[in-house]
Amino acid sequence: MPPSEFLQSKAKKTEAALAHYLDSWSGVPDTLLEAIRYSLFAGGKRLRPALALGAAELVSGDDAPALPVACAIEMIHTYSLIHDDLPSMDDDDLRRGKPTCHKAFSESAAILAGDGLLTMAFDMVAETGSTAIVQEIARAAGVAGMVGGQQFDLEGEGQQLDMAHLQRIHRAKTGALIRVSLRAGAMAVHASDAQIDALTAYGEHLGLAFQITDDILDVVGNEEVLGKPVGSDTSLEKSTYPALVGLDESRRLAKEAVDAAIDALVAFGDEADVFRELATFLTSREA
Amino acid sequence: MPPSEFLQSKAKKTEAALAHYLDSWSGVPDTLLEAIRYSLFAGGKRLRPALALGAAELVSGDDAPALPVACAIEMIHTYSLIHDDLPSMDDDDLRRGKPTCHKAFSESAAILAGDGLLTMAFDMVAETGSTAIVQEIARAAGVAGMVGGQQFDLEGEGQQLDMAHLQRIHRAKTGALIRVSLRAGAMAVHASDAQIDALTAYGEHLGLAFQITDDILDVVGNEEVLGKPVGSDTSLEKSTYPALVGLDESRRLAKEAVDAAIDALVAFGDEADVFRELATFLTSREA
Repeated sequence: MPPSEFLQSKAKKTEAALAHYLDSWSGVPDTLLEAIRYSLFAGGKRLRPALALGAAELVSGDDAPALPVACAIEMIHTYSLIHDDLPSMDDDDLRRGKPTCHKAFSESAAILAGDGLLTMAFDMVAETGSTAIVQEIARAAGVAGMVGGQQFDLEGEGQQLDMAHLQRIHRAKTGALIRVSLRAGAMAVHASDAQIDALTAYGEHLGLAFQITDDILDVVGNEEVLGKPVGSDTSLEKSTYPALVGLDESRRLAKEAVDAAIDALVAFGDEADVFRELATFLTSREA
Repeated sequence: MPPSEFLQSKAKKTEAALAHYLDSWSGVPDTLLEAIRYSLFAGGKRLRPALALGAAELVSGDDAPALPVACAIEMIHTYSLIHDDLPSMDDDDLRRGKPTCHKAFSESAAILAGDGLLTMAFDMVAETGSTAIVQEIARAAGVAGMVGGQQFDLEGEGQQLDMAHLQRIHRAKTGALIRVSLRAGAMAVHASDAQIDALTAYGEHLGLAFQITDDILDVVGNEEVLGKPVGSDTSLEKSTYPALVGLDESRRLAKEAVDAAIDALVAFGDEADVFRELATFLTSREA
């Protein structure tokens, strides 16, 4: 299956489950639920859910047990985008070509929509019946993972960071959630330690490749394709791979990470081809 | 045991566990951990942890299994205070006589400290090994509970609300977390449905009594005792019990709720006296 088809098929399952879950709520302020839907269905790639579902399928042939993981991680990803876009954070007005949540609603509604999504995510992931998965995701999303990464990122603004510092930010801010998508998806189908280790390595290399590609696109992409102002990271004087090592070296590093991601899956044989092709696909994307 | 001693003894256990838990983290940005400690150890009553631990003790004679619940709910309560104080929410500069988190640190650090605390809470509560407790707490803290209540509250500002509307806000914003403290604490020691139902009823009446008392104190309290500007709710034109039904009727309603809370515990016999006295104590407090 081509990677684009794989992503679309997993996105469809995830979106149906998310919609069904949101429909099950009552007693929620309308604005809050609207703000949550607005951001959750804003047309993302659903990469993290695809990784969670794909990992479960690779290990067990069935992705259904990982559906709560897929939905929970997409909720966490979405809440992080809402909060990161806030005026006191990255202060972004556009996200995927649409007004950001606090622009479309209000700053308070955006903060609460984010809080609500994060809380919902744990309600959702508890559906797996596994507190080990709850902890795995909480640790990846929390102060030593994604939330900590955003703080490191904000502190690094306007500074010239070295490569080690930049990598620490990325590993926490975006890497941790990509990594845990694969781990928690595999845990949902009771993968062996060796299988989880292999998927973890794949996730770490993929996360790095994905981030370098994001940095490259921020420099060479164009506003129309990306749906956000080109150079928004450089305008905040954020350190990026191209700024640090140049475009060519950034491309080489991305390629190296893709190769390492592909190699990490050796024990899975041909079954893992969709994940191998996905790594190449994600780093040759234009948005 | 007098209620003040009960609260102090449970607060001591909770604070020791929280401090121990925070010390276990590494790889966290210093500012973030400082902001979390600053708000988490700002001298609250630790009412919710005391209810969780007390419920477990009442049911089983042992409060230790409920310690992760107690800590998690205090983390959630603290995150909600941090986010509620933000400029786009209630815009408060002082909390318990000290600068609010965003004043002491920054707005972005306060948002992330709140996000981090909420995420940590689920890591902590997973220690119980019970996904039922994870879900119970997520639902009380989320969009149909505490987070939804804050949204309802913000929407009600500047409006003259009727009693039903005011009660809906309180049940969600403060009631849900008090109620779940008792439920989840009891669940942690495998209480029977009848025991959980009784504690739920106690929690609902206690939450109401507590909120009416808060409203009364906001009117008759003084700034020195409360550590926050008196009349801050009225300055935002929030509806309160005294504004709606007058001080005397508010006091009568609080007393009625305390009596109902006390009655709810009948099946527990004398063992529940500390919870009965606590209800009276909390509604005769001055801060």
